[in-house]
Amino acid sequence: MLEALKEEVFQANLELKRQNVVIYTWGNVSGITEDRKYMVIKPSGIAYEKLQADDMVVLEVESGKKVEGEWNPSSDTETHLVLYRRFPKLLGIVHTHSTYAVSFAQAGKAIRALGTTHADYFYGDIPCTRALKEDEVKKDYEKNTGKVIVECIEKLQLDPLAIPGILVKNHGPFAYGISPKKAVENAVVLEKIAEMAFRTLLLNPESSMESYILDKHYFRKHGKNAYYGQKK
Amino acid sequence: MLEALKEEVFQANLELKRQNVVIYTWGNVSGITEDRKYMVIKPSGIAYEKLQADDMVVLEVESGKKVEGEWNPSSDTETHLVLYRRFPKLLGIVHTHSTYAVSFAQAGKAIRALGTTHADYFYGDIPCTRALKEDEVKKDYEKNTGKVIVECIEKLQLDPLAIPGILVKNHGPFAYGISPKKAVENAVVLEKIAEMAFRTLLLNPESSMESYILDKHYFRKHGKNAYYGQKK
Amino acid sequence: MLEALKEEVFQANLELKRQNVVIYTWGNVSGITEDRKYMVIKPSGIAYEKLQADDMVVLEVESGKKVEGEWNPSSDTETHLVLYRRFPKLLGIVHTHSTYAVSFAQAGKAIRALGTTHADYFYGDIPCTRALKEDEVKKDYEKNTGKVIVECIEKLQLDPLAIPGILVKNHGPFAYGISPKKAVENAVVLEKIAEMAFRTLLLNPESSMESYILDKHYFRKHGKNAYYGQKK
Amino acid sequence: MLEALKEEVFQANLELKRQNVVIYTWGNVSGITEDRKYMVIKPSGIAYEKLQADDMVVLEVESGKKVEGEWNPSSDTETHLVLYRRFPKLLGIVHTHSTYAVSFAQAGKAIRALGTTHADYFYGDIPCTRALKEDEVKKDYEKNTGKVIVECIEKLQLDPLAIPGILVKNHGPFAYGISPKKAVENAVVLEKIAEMAFRTLLLNPESSMESYILDKHYFRKHGKNAYYGQKK
Repeated sequence: MLEALKEEVFQANLELKRQNVVIYTWGNVSGITEDRKYMVIKPSGIAYEKLQADDMVVLEVESGKKVEGEWNPSSDTETHLVLYRRFPKLLGIVHTHSTYAVSFAQAGKAIRALGTTHADYFYGDIPCTRALKEDEVKKDYEKNTGKVIVECIEKLQLDPLAIPGILVKNHGPFAYGISPKKAVENAVVLEKIAEMAFRTLLLNPESSMESYILDKHYFRKHGKNAYYGQKK
Repeated sequence: MLEALKEEVFQANLELKRQNVVIYTWGNVSGITEDRKYMVIKPSGIAYEKLQADDMVVLEVESGKKVEGEWNPSSDTETHLVLYRRFPKLLGIVHTHSTYAVSFAQAGKAIRALGTTHADYFYGDIPCTRALKEDEVKKDYEKNTGKVIVECIEKLQLDPLAIPGILVKNHGPFAYGISPKKAVENAVVLEKIAEMAFRTLLLNPESSMESYILDKHYFRKHGKNAYYGQKK
Repeated sequence: MLEALKEEVFQANLELKRQNVVIYTWGNVSGITEDRKYMVIKPSGIAYEKLQADDMVVLEVESGKKVEGEWNPSSDTETHLVLYRRFPKLLGIVHTHSTYAVSFAQAGKAIRALGTTHADYFYGDIPCTRALKEDEVKKDYEKNTGKVIVECIEKLQLDPLAIPGILVKNHGPFAYGISPKKAVENAVVLEKIAEMAFRTLLLNPESSMESYILDKHYFRKHGKNAYYGQKK
Repeated sequence: MLEALKEEVFQANLELKRQNVVIYTWGNVSGITEDRKYMVIKPSGIAYEKLQADDMVVLEVESGKKVEGEWNPSSDTETHLVLYRRFPKLLGIVHTHSTYAVSFAQAGKAIRALGTTHADYFYGDIPCTRALKEDEVKKDYEKNTGKVIVECIEKLQLDPLAIPGILVKNHGPFAYGISPKKAVENAVVLEKIAEMAFRTLLLNPESSMESYILDKHYFRKHGKNAYYGQKK
């Protein structure tokens, strides 16, 4: 079942490797069916070199039960499920340990919107969640990771497609999008702008960008009056 | 029409990718005919892997109207046009989001001339423009980006071929040259010297270079008494 | 003799190169037979491009004498032997001069556990030994390097498989594991988390992680209740 | 004439490119005949991709006159000649604009001996020369660059084979050795240890290494009692 989505999720996982945002088995990509009944995700701890489309694992979104696949799903499966259930616009989710993004997550700092590269993809600062509490870690850790992400997005009243990424404190980035492929692109760009923000802050800790530049760049590429790229 | 220039601009765009100063569809290169009637530029938002010489877009410089090409031109087209109109010596223009240069642009800091690598290509500091004002961003943003570049170059009384690059605040670098190919080389070198300047300033914020070293290196490579390289 | 182990150690040495943690002849990997009688190690100062499995050198662990091999063993051989003798669980040892790890070693600073990437592999801070004293350097330097590593591990009461790496002050990292291959993986990850820690500390010198997150990530991947990856 | 040396110098120039310490036509390598009559050096400003062994230029060391070759020699030719004339043990010289080394040169700071990676190749700090004075730059600039290097080495009473590299202030590194190939290796290692020193100093500006560690590592690899590598 779901051959096309498996292939899509598989290719998106390989793209993570090609874009140098993961080493070894770090990182995972998932996708969801349009009716939001099934999620397809990378198996846990299998080397990218050995991965095939058929190794992707299928789970029922509501129950979280595996319905197809030889392997255990990614250990971060519960986090993905929480996000898909809460945000019906997300069709792909990515988790990586890309190094600049992880550095901000470990420092407990948001990636502030400092330039147009950021504004072309993320409509505002990329937030960093609070740390999980002891009981949230000890029990249902991966589910609670999802909940802390949801809490942060709700508290800041963000649209997860307008700011399609977040940092989990002491952990690393999650990115999302309207497809597994787009989620990977957002994860790659998140890493690139983390790199730029890191150096910007070392050069000038007071750096900032006016909100009207953020508006302009975001909306010239997204939304109904967008004029970047080609008419579809 | 203009097959040779299209090929030249196409190759220069691919070179941006080979030199690792762009990812995805970021960055664009343009060229202009010798009579300065037509500009050739990369289409907007087309993946480099799919790009062909024939996809390049031709515009009339004076009117800014597209005269050939299937696609929309780069969203930065108006910026290129302003620069070609104002500086008749420029025959190629490049825009990238290369990471070190963007970091300086986001920090709002010029790339100061700190060594001979800089002096071999840029005869003085590479300036950073002021931020655009709200009305300049809201209306005719790309044209106003060009105007702010022109304003900065004029205010500092620079020769854009002697300092063939600039940073637009909160945005990133533009570079230019006597051909699309040369403009790309200047963009690549601008990124390299931004990398060097970044580390130099972390090691010693008081770093500086005597102007007679700047003179020497610039003029041993450029101008009528240049002795670097081979006689043409 | 020991063809399989030689091949394993040889492949692990090549992997160091592929993972970009060594240049030239820097770095070495060893393995030990299950009965802990013989150690196999890379020869000293032979270019990786010319290396063959047959070039690996075999030494008797107890006496430290070479029992097979055309070449001199790695100059760090005595350090490896001290570690194998003291820690019977180690089956592979790696030494590199990977740049971020060396930077911490030169700065005399531990790589603190600041995030889950660290916790997935190292159950606590990766310590930095004290500097060797003059007499320890002048006589039996390599053996004393091993002894200083042992001293540091014992003083901190660490399990070398739970924190499978260490920094020798002013020198660089040693990593270990339950096979030569796993030791290389630990060396590669040690470098990656050093890179992340370096940037984290520049962004926020006060960064830290709660111990319950360390516990969770370490034990979801290691130990008897681990659930990361696939059942063996 | 000198086909073997031309080939050697040519290959050493290509190695600079392979090791990523130069881009475009930056950097040059030279060699000298054993009787020290002739120097072979890369031509000025020719793309590495087009370079052939036959393009190498031959000059008479004493007079500095070109005796063979179609092209102008490297613009840094006079610097190389001054060094060969003054230091009879040098058989190869390299100049690059590798980025970490240039950063130290631009900051006007020596690369201090902070660890064993440094000590394996350089027996002490890699000094940075004073800046050239105005008259030294205006007339005979390249020759005076050589003289300032000589002045610095003499003042510090260094053996240029024991510390086979130096930084010219606001410019970049020169490295040397007992062959063009060895000089390139020293240039590559100089860049690597500059990278390590840069990060070490950001982590801990007070970092230092005891001189007995420097002695040990240098002499276990160099000199008559060396035991690193294989007996020749």
